[in-house]
Amino acid sequence: MKTILHRRYRFCASHRLHRPGWTDEQNFAVYGKCSNPHGHGHNYVLDLGVSGPVDPANGMITNLADLDAFVEREALADFDHVYLNEQVPAFRSVVPTTENICRVLWDRLRAYPHARLESIGVQETGSNSFEYAGEDRGEH
Amino acid sequence: MKTILHRRYRFCASHRLHRPGWTDEQNFAVYGKCSNPHGHGHNYVLDLGVSGPVDPANGMITNLADLDAFVEREALADFDHVYLNEQVPAFRSVVPTTENICRVLWDRLRAYPHARLESIGVQETGSNSFEYAGEDRGEH
Amino acid sequence: MKTILHRRYRFCASHRLHRPGWTDEQNFAVYGKCSNPHGHGHNYVLDLGVSGPVDPANGMITNLADLDAFVEREALADFDHVYLNEQVPAFRSVVPTTENICRVLWDRLRAYPHARLESIGVQETGSNSFEYAGEDRGEH
Amino acid sequence: MKTILHRRYRFCASHRLHRPGWTDEQNFAVYGKCSNPHGHGHNYVLDLGVSGPVDPANGMITNLADLDAFVEREALADFDHVYLNEQVPAFRSVVPTTENICRVLWDRLRAYPHARLESIGVQETGSNSFEYAGEDRGEH
Amino acid sequence: MKTILHRRYRFCASHRLHRPGWTDEQNFAVYGKCSNPHGHGHNYVLDLGVSGPVDPANGMITNLADLDAFVEREALADFDHVYLNEQVPAFRSVVPTTENICRVLWDRLRAYPHARLESIGVQETGSNSFEYAGEDRGEH
Amino acid sequence: MKTILHRRYRFCASHRLHRPGWTDEQNFAVYGKCSNPHGHGHNYVLDLGVSGPVDPANGMITNLADLDAFVEREALADFDHVYLNEQVPAFRSVVPTTENICRVLWDRLRAYPHARLESIGVQETGSNSFEYAGEDRGEH
Repeated sequence: MKTILHRRYRFCASHRLHRPGWTDEQNFAVYGKCSNPHGHGHNYVLDLGVSGPVDPANGMITNLADLDAFVEREALADFDHVYLNEQVPAFRSVVPTTENICRVLWDRLRAYPHARLESIGVQETGSNSFEYAGEDRGEH
Repeated sequence: MKTILHRRYRFCASHRLHRPGWTDEQNFAVYGKCSNPHGHGHNYVLDLGVSGPVDPANGMITNLADLDAFVEREALADFDHVYLNEQVPAFRSVVPTTENICRVLWDRLRAYPHARLESIGVQETGSNSFEYAGEDRGEH
Repeated sequence: MKTILHRRYRFCASHRLHRPGWTDEQNFAVYGKCSNPHGHGHNYVLDLGVSGPVDPANGMITNLADLDAFVEREALADFDHVYLNEQVPAFRSVVPTTENICRVLWDRLRAYPHARLESIGVQETGSNSFEYAGEDRGEH
Repeated sequence: MKTILHRRYRFCASHRLHRPGWTDEQNFAVYGKCSNPHGHGHNYVLDLGVSGPVDPANGMITNLADLDAFVEREALADFDHVYLNEQVPAFRSVVPTTENICRVLWDRLRAYPHARLESIGVQETGSNSFEYAGEDRGEH
Repeated sequence: MKTILHRRYRFCASHRLHRPGWTDEQNFAVYGKCSNPHGHGHNYVLDLGVSGPVDPANGMITNLADLDAFVEREALADFDHVYLNEQVPAFRSVVPTTENICRVLWDRLRAYPHARLESIGVQETGSNSFEYAGEDRGEH
Repeated sequence: MKTILHRRYRFCASHRLHRPGWTDEQNFAVYGKCSNPHGHGHNYVLDLGVSGPVDPANGMITNLADLDAFVEREALADFDHVYLNEQVPAFRSVVPTTENICRVLWDRLRAYPHARLESIGVQETGSNSFEYAGEDRGEH
């Protein structure tokens, strides 16, 4: 049996979908109004899934206070209330689509020391979300 | 690692749970008030999960404009604002339970050419949803 | 000061927006796909607002058990899991738009004996709701 | 009795809370991280309340197709997928707080010809919304 | 024109609906399973509505940081993660129905110095909420 | 292919996170305000996932009436409107963290005779949920 804790965090950020090597016409053809030169924004929801044995002493997979502090330091401090293209270095070379936001957040959060990161979900709008689920990561 | 895009669509439809070969009493015993002869309806939510490699050029699994056009043409055009029993041919021979709606939608949507269909979820009410998840479908 | 209790109820029903005296073309021009001859359906949400003095003995405006029984008997028993056009007599002569559903429910629910009906809201979809708010109804 | 139609629209935009005549320190003291020089963004929800007599012919206060076209043309076309500070002229001289967004949208939408604008709500996040409710606007 | 800011807060608490002067049978007849002697609990949502002129300098009715600090100090510090009957003195003499919770919170929050308290809503469950709206409170 | 039915149930309960063998200081260090001696409460959401073949006769994995009766009898009758620590025997020896609530509910619900229990999710607040997913349970 596997127990997974899901915990939701929120960050408000702006982004622009725009590939530097393309003309404006090419960018508009691929990204539509998301390529607007001044950017636009979202209330992102980050859903973390972490698993691990339930400690028989305290009945928890991991202490939420530990998880919250880790996520705040490794992700929210850099992602909340910013313009992702300009202020998060990873998005200088890759376009901040939600797929890429998932991957970048996974790389920042996979090192959580107290439980195994199972999945990262990032919701851009109520109609749209992406899930990045680890496989074959070896032992925790 | 696997990246899955979840995208939500909505359709408003009516249906009646009623098996032609049964008496009204038999239908009521199985389906309760859902077998009311005049039908009733729901705001259905369709949640598609599609996976695939993230294209390094544009940072996307698939372009949402492509996915939306496909789902509109293959599913919503026939399922939105209709009486499912009468207007969707598949439900002339099978009862439009949400289980069967999932299967019929899967058969219509599995051929999406730009990503692999991983799962279909259909929510009938806020308390009730069904998920149809593919396994062993061979290579994409 | 005024205290209002809001209580939510749900009913699943189908309807068709269609005015008998008009041609199909006229109906389609006004109601679009909502005039589909076989009907379609919704998960309706009914939000009742009732007010009154808080009884100092029990701390309540009205007992929810009384309100629930009244709404079940006067509204849900007839509106849930039905085709409104055919099965609710009031909609034989008026088109079951949400505006008219509000008015019909108001007329059925205004006589609640234990508190004053302040407002009725009917939500057809997450984007769409109607509110019918009483004014100048005289004393309770 | 008054019947009000509430209809929800959505727009994704970025903004920066920053008053040009103030130093960065003054701006930070008032607006905190919302004054970040590169801006940030939100999924805004716009809730319109419009009232009027229910037309006995069609059972509607106003046709949603008319309302949607009006809101698209007068509001969403300019507010969706933009950086409000740069791309909506009204926010060159006033800070795009949600209070001011409400007022600017009210001025754009009050002229709706088919029903009376009763209220405008703008939700910035799930915890935060603003409502601008007209009073004493004279006759419709 | 009136602009109202709505802001949502949350607190998790337990309570028991039980009137000391009544027998257990009387309490059960009025409150049902809510009178269970060991109590039960809810995720309460508190929705504050405050109004006032929009300051032309900063574009705000009131600074959210001020409002949040006030609500934390005057309400949440005492109401979150407690057993209301035992730990909030006001509920030693009145039953902690949601109606009474509204009134007690109103008395604690009406003195907010930077805007006028218009309404307090307390949601007990997704089906149930109470609104306490001030009238004729004189000038702010 | 696998079809899973998800069904949501709700229960309102109170609990206290407190390990008898520890001092109050130890408990507070681990559980924070959740160790408040008088307890606090939540609106819990229970999400059951059950799978099985869709019966070609009635188009269903299992009849919801059967599932609802089973969950009411095996879980909700004991968990709704109670103080978990005192009134559910399993929590006399283990701390009622959501992880442990999941496990206890799994043990009560796995014997459902008409479909295979795939997963149990318990949501404590909108930010927090736990999922207990069976693996290698042998044949149904």
